[in-house]
Amino acid sequence: MKRVVNFSAGPAILPEAVLKQAAEELFVYKNTGMSVMEMSHRSQDFKNIITDAEANLRKLLNVPDNYKILFLQGGANTQFSMIPLNLMKNKKADYLTTGSWAKKALKEAKKYLDVNEVCSSEDKMFSYIPDLNKLQFDPKADYVHICENNTIYGTKYHELPDTKGIDLVSDMSSCILSEPIDISKYALIYAGAQKNIGPAGTTIVIIRKDLITENYPDYTPLMLQYKIHADKDSMYNTPPTYGIYMCGLVFKHLLNNGGVEAIYEHNKQKAALLYDYLDQSKLFKPTVVKKDRSLMNVTFNTGNEELNKKFIELAKNNGFVNLKGHRSVGGMRASIYNAMPLDGVKALVEFMRKFEEENL
Amino acid sequence: MKRVVNFSAGPAILPEAVLKQAAEELFVYKNTGMSVMEMSHRSQDFKNIITDAEANLRKLLNVPDNYKILFLQGGANTQFSMIPLNLMKNKKADYLTTGSWAKKALKEAKKYLDVNEVCSSEDKMFSYIPDLNKLQFDPKADYVHICENNTIYGTKYHELPDTKGIDLVSDMSSCILSEPIDISKYALIYAGAQKNIGPAGTTIVIIRKDLITENYPDYTPLMLQYKIHADKDSMYNTPPTYGIYMCGLVFKHLLNNGGVEAIYEHNKQKAALLYDYLDQSKLFKPTVVKKDRSLMNVTFNTGNEELNKKFIELAKNNGFVNLKGHRSVGGMRASIYNAMPLDGVKALVEFMRKFEEENL
Repeated sequence: MKRVVNFSAGPAILPEAVLKQAAEELFVYKNTGMSVMEMSHRSQDFKNIITDAEANLRKLLNVPDNYKILFLQGGANTQFSMIPLNLMKNKKADYLTTGSWAKKALKEAKKYLDVNEVCSSEDKMFSYIPDLNKLQFDPKADYVHICENNTIYGTKYHELPDTKGIDLVSDMSSCILSEPIDISKYALIYAGAQKNIGPAGTTIVIIRKDLITENYPDYTPLMLQYKIHADKDSMYNTPPTYGIYMCGLVFKHLLNNGGVEAIYEHNKQKAALLYDYLDQSKLFKPTVVKKDRSLMNVTFNTGNEELNKKFIELAKNNGFVNLKGHRSVGGMRASIYNAMPLDGVKALVEFMRKFEEENL
Repeated sequence: MKRVVNFSAGPAILPEAVLKQAAEELFVYKNTGMSVMEMSHRSQDFKNIITDAEANLRKLLNVPDNYKILFLQGGANTQFSMIPLNLMKNKKADYLTTGSWAKKALKEAKKYLDVNEVCSSEDKMFSYIPDLNKLQFDPKADYVHICENNTIYGTKYHELPDTKGIDLVSDMSSCILSEPIDISKYALIYAGAQKNIGPAGTTIVIIRKDLITENYPDYTPLMLQYKIHADKDSMYNTPPTYGIYMCGLVFKHLLNNGGVEAIYEHNKQKAALLYDYLDQSKLFKPTVVKKDRSLMNVTFNTGNEELNKKFIELAKNNGFVNLKGHRSVGGMRASIYNAMPLDGVKALVEFMRKFEEENL
């Protein structure tokens, strides 16, 4: 069976080389005589897997020594609770609302903190990032929270807000490892693996070590305490071992191919190809203002529901799958994560050109 | 590379037929053109996977219609918090302490409830199950909690306590699907997948529907509410899709091989082989009283630390791995879960016999 070109927003496309290696090693991993799935998490073989994964992610993102990397479970949704529970001091936080996920994070934080919504782009269906220069942060806020790439709406912060020294917390689920970042500008970064890293079920947290405290309220569930996980190097309980193994393969694959700098160039090329076409198309319109466009999730629309539907179906029949936009915005979305090859985007643009000719 | 005989307590051995199928399908799953890992959890293909997994588990355990099956994340440790948070009414619960996991569950519940430790077998290093006829339950307790199979110590409840109508909650992580059970005797069953079902990272919860309420305290994290997950059929957020796929393959494999009744016969045969040998051995001594022995985790000891070490190392060199007992008890432990073939146990007993001859 031929592989399709998969534009899914997540769980999403993985590098073919990684999948091939995983398939080969699934029944017996190296000289261990067993599958990675069957390995005790306390075994030396698994310790090597998680240690290598952590070291390679550290290398890829230049993570400084004063940051801890955690492999957790429960996705971004669990982080929505863990962050306020663990980072609270003054019990105040500032949230920027740039999409559904940012909104959910804010709602959950309100259970625990006095939350200030600093800005929102909901007035225009989250099609832009608000002007960051106009923002007023509460100097007593424990942190400022952003969702850096908005998967559903196709927007991305291309600069970070100047928080005047307040700790910045960023949901990078759909943009982590897509471009170089300066970790020291963040207090905490979190990301579900299932968009740009590996299979669903592993959550990456990169946290500045001084934030790993026991300041959480007494009612905080044990598994929602960063300290428990940090003290045991993500092995307090059985971690999602196979997911971590897959993340590790992806990290190694990125390193072997020039690291984040190289994939960033690749990603810019792919996105330019698609946006350049969209900007001159008479049929398809990009839905996000130019300056705030995501490199990972490209949203567009014909403005005609029937035509959108026809396009999505015809695309599917031609091997371009998961192009339907999120139900809350409609239209189309092409998620072109790290693992999407340039040829995949080229073929899509070619297909769109043809569709435009035939349907304009 | 030859496969070893893997007696790991968890993550643990999986059926070879299942691993082979997973390896074959890893790169492209059926006619989807993609790996299961790359599949949107909202796609029809994944919906079929999770629906089939749920239906097959329901069939295997005869789960009645008034019970909901959930596929969650976070392992048994997360259930230790979710259970008191979601099941509280009178804010009282009775816990039976038969091992480290039962103890951890009790400790976590104390954060939220007035907890009564009904009994404990810690006086004899958890080598037995206390006399259930002597137990006094609080008629106002919201539930009674047991850990039904104690992985570390090798004990198992062979009958359930008569709770006089109080809801029974059972941690079945290391015995689920090993023998037929009457679900209607339980209010809630939970199990980490990584012992008898699939890879680490998926947690199975079987809960009586009337217990899925909004009685939890206001501070309960969203992801720790059963209702959120139940209302969306385990798809409120991205579930651990690949793990669920693997669990589904194991469920189907069990059904194709006679279901739980057949595997129970198989498990009894394996356990009898090993315990019968241990009961007559002059070198190896079983550590658990006869009536409370686990079918899944068989613990034994020579009583001599040097000899234990020698045995474990020699066994490893002969392809019998992960026989070292948990650090808190020492000695040896052979976990012989569903996926352990009879031949694996036969070969181990043969090896032990030889070792006994040479070292007595």
